[in-house]
Amino acid sequence: METLAQKAAECLARVREKQPLVHNITNFVVMNSTANALLACGASPVMAHAIEEVEQMVSFAGALVLNIGTLTPPWIESMLLAAKKARALGVPAVLDPVGSGATEFRTNSSRRIISEAGVSLVRGNASEVLSLSDNAGQTKGVDSTHSVDEAAQAGRDLALAIATPVAITGAVDLITDGKRTLRVANGHALMTKVTGTGCLATAIIGAFLAVEPDTLEATAAALAYVGLAGERAAAVSSGPGSLQVNLLDALYNISPADLAQGAKIHA
Amino acid sequence: METLAQKAAECLARVREKQPLVHNITNFVVMNSTANALLACGASPVMAHAIEEVEQMVSFAGALVLNIGTLTPPWIESMLLAAKKARALGVPAVLDPVGSGATEFRTNSSRRIISEAGVSLVRGNASEVLSLSDNAGQTKGVDSTHSVDEAAQAGRDLALAIATPVAITGAVDLITDGKRTLRVANGHALMTKVTGTGCLATAIIGAFLAVEPDTLEATAAALAYVGLAGERAAAVSSGPGSLQVNLLDALYNISPADLAQGAKIHA
Amino acid sequence: METLAQKAAECLARVREKQPLVHNITNFVVMNSTANALLACGASPVMAHAIEEVEQMVSFAGALVLNIGTLTPPWIESMLLAAKKARALGVPAVLDPVGSGATEFRTNSSRRIISEAGVSLVRGNASEVLSLSDNAGQTKGVDSTHSVDEAAQAGRDLALAIATPVAITGAVDLITDGKRTLRVANGHALMTKVTGTGCLATAIIGAFLAVEPDTLEATAAALAYVGLAGERAAAVSSGPGSLQVNLLDALYNISPADLAQGAKIHA
Repeated sequence: METLAQKAAECLARVREKQPLVHNITNFVVMNSTANALLACGASPVMAHAIEEVEQMVSFAGALVLNIGTLTPPWIESMLLAAKKARALGVPAVLDPVGSGATEFRTNSSRRIISEAGVSLVRGNASEVLSLSDNAGQTKGVDSTHSVDEAAQAGRDLALAIATPVAITGAVDLITDGKRTLRVANGHALMTKVTGTGCLATAIIGAFLAVEPDTLEATAAALAYVGLAGERAAAVSSGPGSLQVNLLDALYNISPADLAQGAKIHA
Repeated sequence: METLAQKAAECLARVREKQPLVHNITNFVVMNSTANALLACGASPVMAHAIEEVEQMVSFAGALVLNIGTLTPPWIESMLLAAKKARALGVPAVLDPVGSGATEFRTNSSRRIISEAGVSLVRGNASEVLSLSDNAGQTKGVDSTHSVDEAAQAGRDLALAIATPVAITGAVDLITDGKRTLRVANGHALMTKVTGTGCLATAIIGAFLAVEPDTLEATAAALAYVGLAGERAAAVSSGPGSLQVNLLDALYNISPADLAQGAKIHA
Repeated sequence: METLAQKAAECLARVREKQPLVHNITNFVVMNSTANALLACGASPVMAHAIEEVEQMVSFAGALVLNIGTLTPPWIESMLLAAKKARALGVPAVLDPVGSGATEFRTNSSRRIISEAGVSLVRGNASEVLSLSDNAGQTKGVDSTHSVDEAAQAGRDLALAIATPVAITGAVDLITDGKRTLRVANGHALMTKVTGTGCLATAIIGAFLAVEPDTLEATAAALAYVGLAGERAAAVSSGPGSLQVNLLDALYNISPADLAQGAKIHA
C-alpha cells in the first residue's frame, strides 16, 4: 500500500512535470517570495488582481491562491470574482486568511470569501482558524498567539460547518475535513522568523492542488515538502536572512525521492 | 552611570522580551525587507493600510511606522487616520518622508502628516530633512544629495519648529530635539547600495520606541543596532545582494551584550 | 574599430559615472529586486506611480521604466501620463508588457501605451512580443510559451509597424528596429527560475538608455551585462535563492573591463 510520503513524492513529481499555472491574488509583502517559491517548486506563478482580468486569468490556471494579508475592499472584490469563476470552472482555490481575528475587516472579509464564493481549502495559523470558528478569540497582528492543539477541535468544527477542509500550520501541522485528519511534523522553528513562510506554504498547496484531487493528501504533501525544505535550509543557515535564501534553494533541489524519504505525514 | 551604549543594549533586550507589534503603513519596495528586519530584531510586524482597519490595528500596536515611499492619496489618508489614533492612544509613531523634496506631492504629504496628525519622530536623509525645513532645497529622487552636516542646523530648527525629534541618517547619524543632540557612528557605506536600509532603520526605531519612552535614546539605540548589523554584514559580504541577506542574519544574531560593546553613540 | 562589447563596457562605465535617476512604474512583485539591481548597477532608482507626481518625477529622470506586471487602470493612466511627459522632455522610456497575450486587459494596455504615448523600446519575452504583433497568439500566464526564433520575424515586423525598437529576451536575446538586428548570447537557464529577471533586465536597459543614445546598442549592452552577471552568479549558486543574491553581487562587481571581455553581442 502506498504511504502518504510516497503520495507526497508523486504530487511533487507531477508539479514538476505539469508546471501548473498558479494564479495568486496575494499581499504585497510576500509577492516576490511567493513567486520565487512557486518557480522553485516547478510551478508557473502569475500575480493578477485587476477586476478587469482575474476571471480570464483564472480560466487558464491550475489553481487560485487568495491571501488577504494587505487587503482593501477592491482586492476582496477581485478575490470574490476570481473564486466564483474558479468554482464554476472546477479550478481549486485556497484561502489564506492572514490576520483574521486581528481586525473585524479581516475576519469579515475571510468569512465573505468562504460563504459567498467558496474555496477548496482554508490554510491559517491557530489564531486565524480560531477567529473563523464560532468560538472566536481576539488575536494580535498576524502572528499566532495560540497553538495548533488549542485550535484542533475548532478546525474540525469549522471544516464541517463550511464543508471545506482546513489546514492549521504550526510546529505540527493539522489538515482536516472534520472527519479525517492528517498531521505533518516537518518544519523548523527558524521559519517563523522569516516573513511569509505561511503564505509561501499556502501558494505551494495551490500548486499541489492543481495536480492532485485529494485535497487533504495534496495539502499534507505540500506542507511536508515546505517543511522539509525548511529543515534542510535551517541546517545550513546562520539566521533568517540566509534561511530565506536557502529555503528557495531547498525547494528547488528536493527531489521526489527526497520527499518520499523525509516527509513526516501521519494520520 | 549608565552609558548610551548600555542603554541601547537594554532597549534591544526589551524588544526581544516584549516582542512589540509594529504596525507599518509603508511602501511596496521595502515591505518584505521591513517585515523581515522586524522579525529578526524580535518584534512582530504587521502591514495594514486599509482605511477600514488601520485604527483598530494600531490600537493593539506598540508602535506605528509611516513611510511615504510609494504614496498615493488614499494611503496618505490612512496614514493620517492611523497617526491620529496612535496619538490619541499614546502609541509612538515614526514618519519616514521618503523622497520629500523630490516632488511637491511628497513634501506636502509629509508636512500634512506632521502638522495634521503629529508623530513622535521624523527619520530622513539629509535632503529629505532639508526639504521639510524652511530653507528647503530641491533633491533628486530618493537618494540624498546632501550630507548630514549640511542638514544638521536645519534638523535642529525643524525639531524645534514642529516640536518633534528629528533623526538624520547618513555616514554619521544625528538625532536631535533641537536642544539635545546625539550622534551615532555605526554603519557601512555598502548599506547605501541596498534599497530600503533607511526604511528598515525607521521600522526598527519603531520597535525601540515601543519599549523605551526617551525618544532620542531609543532612536540612537535603534540606529546603532542597525549600523552595527551593517558593519558585521559588510565584513562577510561580496556585494549588496549578500549584504541584504547578512544584514538580516546580523540583526537576528546581535545580542544586547554585542550592542553594548559595539554601539558608537555620543552626545 | 570599436566592437559592440567595447561599446557595452563604455555604457556601463557611463552609468557608474553619471548615476542616472531611473523612474520606475513597475509591478509589486519585482519592486525590491528592481531597485536593488539598479543600485548594484550604479544607477539611482525611484518608484513613483501616483498621478499627482509622475510628471514631476520623470522630469528629473534619466529614463522611465514602465512594467505592467500587476496592472490596474489607475496605474496604466499614470504610465500614459509619465510616458507622454517623458516623450515631451526627450527622456527615454522602456516598456515591459508583462503577460501581454495572457489577458486582453494586458494586451490592450500594452498597445495603448505604445500607440497613445510611445516609448523608446519594448522589451518582452517571445510570447509577449507575438501578442503585440498582428499574428497574435494566446499565451499562458507570464512565462513564455514560445522561443525567440519563433518570434524573430514578428519582432521585426512589430518594430517597423510601431517605429520602435523591440527586444525579445530568451536563451539568445534579439534586439531589432526592423532593419538592423543585434543578438546577445549571455545568460544562464537558472535565471528563468528567479522571478522578475526579465523585469530586472528591462530596468537595467533603462539605466543604459539614460547614458547612450543608440537604442539598439544600449539595449544589447544592458542585456549582455545582465546575462554575464547571471552566468557569474549561476557558477556559484546552489539554486534560484542563492542565484538571486549572487546576481546582485555580480551586477555590483562586474567592471567595464569584465564586460568588454565577457559580452557576447553580435550583429
